[in-house]
Amino acid sequence: MKRILILGGRGMVGQKLANHLETQGLASGEAFELTLHDIAPPSDVTAEDNRRHLVGNLAVAAEGAALAAERFDLIFFLASIVSGEAETDFDKGWQTNLWPMWHFLEALRAQHRAMDGAYVPRVIFTSSIAVFGGPYPDKISDEFLQSPQTSYGAQKAACELMIQDFSRKGFIDGMSLRLPTICVRPGKANLAASSFFSGIIREPLNGVEAILPVPDTVRHWHASPRSAAGFLAHAAGLDTALLEGRRALNLPGISCTVAEQIEALRDVAGNNVVALIKPQPDQAIAKIVEGWPRNFAPERAKALGFVAESTFREIIDVYIEDDLPER
Amino acid sequence: MKRILILGGRGMVGQKLANHLETQGLASGEAFELTLHDIAPPSDVTAEDNRRHLVGNLAVAAEGAALAAERFDLIFFLASIVSGEAETDFDKGWQTNLWPMWHFLEALRAQHRAMDGAYVPRVIFTSSIAVFGGPYPDKISDEFLQSPQTSYGAQKAACELMIQDFSRKGFIDGMSLRLPTICVRPGKANLAASSFFSGIIREPLNGVEAILPVPDTVRHWHASPRSAAGFLAHAAGLDTALLEGRRALNLPGISCTVAEQIEALRDVAGNNVVALIKPQPDQAIAKIVEGWPRNFAPERAKALGFVAESTFREIIDVYIEDDLPER
Repeated sequence: MKRILILGGRGMVGQKLANHLETQGLASGEAFELTLHDIAPPSDVTAEDNRRHLVGNLAVAAEGAALAAERFDLIFFLASIVSGEAETDFDKGWQTNLWPMWHFLEALRAQHRAMDGAYVPRVIFTSSIAVFGGPYPDKISDEFLQSPQTSYGAQKAACELMIQDFSRKGFIDGMSLRLPTICVRPGKANLAASSFFSGIIREPLNGVEAILPVPDTVRHWHASPRSAAGFLAHAAGLDTALLEGRRALNLPGISCTVAEQIEALRDVAGNNVVALIKPQPDQAIAKIVEGWPRNFAPERAKALGFVAESTFREIIDVYIEDDLPER
Repeated sequence: MKRILILGGRGMVGQKLANHLETQGLASGEAFELTLHDIAPPSDVTAEDNRRHLVGNLAVAAEGAALAAERFDLIFFLASIVSGEAETDFDKGWQTNLWPMWHFLEALRAQHRAMDGAYVPRVIFTSSIAVFGGPYPDKISDEFLQSPQTSYGAQKAACELMIQDFSRKGFIDGMSLRLPTICVRPGKANLAASSFFSGIIREPLNGVEAILPVPDTVRHWHASPRSAAGFLAHAAGLDTALLEGRRALNLPGISCTVAEQIEALRDVAGNNVVALIKPQPDQAIAKIVEGWPRNFAPERAKALGFVAESTFREIIDVYIEDDLPER
């Protein structure tokens, strides 16, 4: 019985991942039990829920240590505050997005030592394309420097370095997945500066107006929540020797402009739905987004079998299939 | 009167820098006073020494905070343990090479806040080419990814991220200089895995045998201690707006093989001196060095006016001029 922990399990990606694992199983076919940990308690546990739910704060080092002491086989580290919040609250950003990772890795290392090196958990970390900063080439290669221009990106990049070093030393077997912007996110807008990329599709499809804070010429890099769950599950079963020591990966996605997003929405849902998108320039958001990557050539991840959508239309279709109507 | 602090001021580069500043002054021509801080007390303070000497341990956060409270205008952050030691002592490496940087940056930010933003010190950090990991292109460009394969490299890269983010936010005005391997280091061999690159030149020139632990086909990237001091002094006077947000720089140096180093030594000092180099393969050192960069195209740093030697022969000549005979 494989024991799986999802840190940040109540978040959108955590939920998608849990559903993915339960419906599709592990690539290895092994049986597993699922523990979801988050700072917020679950709101909708049902009788048939086979998941174990833990509530706690990873910023308290002792809580991370207690989790590590359970010696999970597979750990997804998704816990994080989002880019917009990390940018406005400098202290909270670093205290939430970096230090809990360090303390948790140290706690895993203590378990590794306690087991005389026999315990080496697989750790999959959700990093971000925010580790990059401009100016960019047309397509960002797998060898492009990390020069983040947000605190969120700097924190993610620093976590990647720690995961790589703990893995190189054999304390854990870790990977960092630099997720594209996840679109279309179900549910409510969040504090991520990227939130509108989902909002302009999701709100209109639900009959609600959406604000577009940037010019429609903005180009960005997207993958669906379904792809995000697929990336994480795929990483769980990967032979990490194939990474050859470079344990952070740029993942596949779709590069398109906001105008192309809107045209894809028009194809799916018509003019009346598109008319619900209201341009309302926001300089603060525009400035953050301006510094973000627009396109990638993620050859390593493709060669390793990571797969995303191939058109933005597909991304909308995934949203409609998986998340519409919204509860 | 500009107030300058050198953290790690008792180290070789710290001493070269202090001498450089005292003999050549600041680029701005401003008067200054020099404070050197290190974990070890100075051994050779003379009556005519105009430097202020402080002894303390930056790993104690309160000591960094007390230093920050002095609000130095210009801070050189050279304090670090070397690569070999960081590799064999994982705890000491991270505790010495990363956390003191974080606590010190936080302490500087507290001073920034206390001064209502008027205090924004220039901070120059000695990073390293160890932030890179193979496989490498023939020449490493300024846009090559950081994927360190040593703990030392991971720690330096993480410090760079913090310095960039604190600078982006305007708390400090920082830069990270990725020094080439400094060669020829005067004095004794140290625990750096790169120590032999200097040893095979220095020991023979002083009439002493030197061990060569790697094949002479090993290619590496070098600059002299004089260049290192020059880089740091140049960075102190640089308009950091020219960095355009990318605050870590690859610096100029010389790419050559160990065989080319040896031939340059033969040119300078003859066969009898070269005969003092004794090959004695060391797999541990060879493995570390194998992962190191061999050549760079540091176009940004050159355009910003950083200058190094242009032949390895010059590097030997600098050693002879500046440091021979050794005391």
